[in-house]
Amino acid sequence: MKVEPKTLPGFMELFPSEQLEFDRIKNIIIDTYKEYGYYGLDTPIIELSSVLLAKAGGETEKQIYRFNKGDNDLSLRFDLTVPLAKYVSSRYNELVFPFKRYQVGKVFRGERNQKGRYREFYQCDIDVIGDEELSIKYDSEMPSIIYDIFKKLNFGDFVIRINNRKILSGFFDSLGLKDKISDILRTIDKLEKIGKEETIKELKSINLNDEQIDKTLKLINSKNINDIKDLCDNELFNTGVNELESVIKDLELRNLNKDNYMVDFTIARGLDYYTGTVYETTLKDYPSLGSICSGGRYDSLAEYYTDKKLPGVGISIGLTRLFYQLMEAKIINPSIKCTSDVIIVPMTDNYEYVYKVFNKLKGMDLKVNICFLDKGFKQKLRYAERLNNKYAIIIGDDEVDKNEVSIKNLKEFSQTSVSLDDLSNCKFN
Amino acid sequence: MKVEPKTLPGFMELFPSEQLEFDRIKNIIIDTYKEYGYYGLDTPIIELSSVLLAKAGGETEKQIYRFNKGDNDLSLRFDLTVPLAKYVSSRYNELVFPFKRYQVGKVFRGERNQKGRYREFYQCDIDVIGDEELSIKYDSEMPSIIYDIFKKLNFGDFVIRINNRKILSGFFDSLGLKDKISDILRTIDKLEKIGKEETIKELKSINLNDEQIDKTLKLINSKNINDIKDLCDNELFNTGVNELESVIKDLELRNLNKDNYMVDFTIARGLDYYTGTVYETTLKDYPSLGSICSGGRYDSLAEYYTDKKLPGVGISIGLTRLFYQLMEAKIINPSIKCTSDVIIVPMTDNYEYVYKVFNKLKGMDLKVNICFLDKGFKQKLRYAERLNNKYAIIIGDDEVDKNEVSIKNLKEFSQTSVSLDDLSNCKFN
Repeated sequence: MKVEPKTLPGFMELFPSEQLEFDRIKNIIIDTYKEYGYYGLDTPIIELSSVLLAKAGGETEKQIYRFNKGDNDLSLRFDLTVPLAKYVSSRYNELVFPFKRYQVGKVFRGERNQKGRYREFYQCDIDVIGDEELSIKYDSEMPSIIYDIFKKLNFGDFVIRINNRKILSGFFDSLGLKDKISDILRTIDKLEKIGKEETIKELKSINLNDEQIDKTLKLINSKNINDIKDLCDNELFNTGVNELESVIKDLELRNLNKDNYMVDFTIARGLDYYTGTVYETTLKDYPSLGSICSGGRYDSLAEYYTDKKLPGVGISIGLTRLFYQLMEAKIINPSIKCTSDVIIVPMTDNYEYVYKVFNKLKGMDLKVNICFLDKGFKQKLRYAERLNNKYAIIIGDDEVDKNEVSIKNLKEFSQTSVSLDDLSNCKFN
Repeated sequence: MKVEPKTLPGFMELFPSEQLEFDRIKNIIIDTYKEYGYYGLDTPIIELSSVLLAKAGGETEKQIYRFNKGDNDLSLRFDLTVPLAKYVSSRYNELVFPFKRYQVGKVFRGERNQKGRYREFYQCDIDVIGDEELSIKYDSEMPSIIYDIFKKLNFGDFVIRINNRKILSGFFDSLGLKDKISDILRTIDKLEKIGKEETIKELKSINLNDEQIDKTLKLINSKNINDIKDLCDNELFNTGVNELESVIKDLELRNLNKDNYMVDFTIARGLDYYTGTVYETTLKDYPSLGSICSGGRYDSLAEYYTDKKLPGVGISIGLTRLFYQLMEAKIINPSIKCTSDVIIVPMTDNYEYVYKVFNKLKGMDLKVNICFLDKGFKQKLRYAERLNNKYAIIIGDDEVDKNEVSIKNLKEFSQTSVSLDDLSNCKFN
């Protein structure tokens, strides 16, 4: 009796060439995080439920993978922020603040099964944590990192949308809508999705009067900071305006292309814990993908573990979902990817020569496959083609005798011979 | 009420500089796997218990993390081989064989808690899977990969010990000890640990007579293939000898340093499924670490999922345990590691200039941190030192005026000034 070798729905498992593209994207993200002087962290996937669920509630508790092993009540991490909070508060005395860390790893949520939603997925997080205080300068480091990543990834035009929660909080406070802020922010957050009409309807349904709605629309339709300065006079609002101005000024000084960032007063971020700068990132030609990189500033990372005040700012990329979307939208085409730069096709028994060529190619910093298939020439070449190789290095007895190799370009169906000495001058990219 | 932010015992969680060293080692392993034309795989951490436990039993079943979620009986993977078997048999029609894959990821075993044993740990696996058959040439690719990895890692002298299970099986078969092979192999496997005396005692206790013990000791004390050829004449034995000769011959042709590999007829590998070449790797100066990279050839990867014959050969590095051992033995010293090549210490408000320097340094392919601490010079420098930075780039108003930066070597307590133009000629490694 054979067991059916099946993979659970909601768990991404890719074909080799797809995985290659996935890893390429993941590595660009990690490398960029490292370029800015961030330390990698790798916290356990399994933690005590009491630790992971110290703050959580509602949806999170329902979705979590939780089980007993021995006497322990355990859970799989559902994000990388709670483990960071645990890490920083338990090692507070040994860490150097501001503590800059990135973490790229899988998290687990038993969501309802639907297309494009995953139960196991990668988050690519970066955060700076301050001890008691954290300079606003870090709030401009985040968009700078996002900018570098999406420039390198080259998925087309992108825009980093930046706002400050203090502006929104101060503004609605001054309109006497303090109690309704979270409802209003939730509605504003959906503006792009549901449209202006529907937004007004929703704002009315939570009892905003016409003047309040009018001012609200004025705010969220503004495209730059100067336009909103007169809309409100409130300490929190003014602080938010100053912070946002400082971030935008810094991005200019950092030389980011102005097409790739903007203030957007509709950005609120659903999560409760953002208290200052907030970010979302969208692909201009693919608005339907939603925000592909989001985050913001928070006053307090770990209040459920420690009395220390640990403010931070961070961003996160949900890579598994993003990768799925990029494939669906055909923005990436993994099927043509190959893991090796060249493949050697030995048609001789002189393996001394074959390995000499192999070592030479490796010395050129190339990724080199060798086809050891015990088959004929056609089948070996078919193997190279099916793996998407561009260049096959063919070594027959003729080549050995002449101290040469034959280089076959499998995409352009051309072939040339070069001497072993000249091989190191060849380009294979 | 605060929750204690604790991490479970048996789960490795490193300090930032330790993690940096861990990742450096992990990346060398991955990069070398890729250099040989292997595809990365990333299978789910959670699988159906029926799939993961298709073959397992005994210890594995006891150690596994298993739980229910909804209607599903789920488990966390306990190795990377079963997921590979699942992957290859379920995608048999789409994959190109020989299928070369590496996978580096966490696996989970609820072992009894003891020092140096982990319940969540990294395995770094590489395997080639053939369709019906697989050339013996791949058996020499494995030691070649191990060789490259440990040369680059530079942990000191290492030896790759190579044997062939067919030699052992054929040999004991011919001595009429077929039924006792697994007991004998288990005893031989421990030779290095328990010594010769104890080995003889154990062999006697499983009823080997003096002649059988004598021949056994002759075999396992031999240091090269020619010495054992006359010890036995048995088809399986001869096949094993030929295969081993072919592998050793290939390693010569591949130009591996002879000090770094040897035949060792005591190597059996505990696991039942190895059927040909087997490998172990030891550090010469640290034999107590045991084998740090092992593997071998097997006839059948996935017989519990498919009728297809899928022979393979592979190796595995248990990175988490290895890293723990390397730290304990002080072979590595992570505490001096720094994530950035340079750190900018701004002592001016002219951030246009600061970011100009930052962009310049990033353009030199350096990892650049900026200290945004809202503190004085001493504290900023202390921050740079505590992060183990070697070079601090100090930018005060003086430097701005002169279009310079000051480079402070924090390890050698020296300082120089260079113009912005000359900065690109500076070395920071």
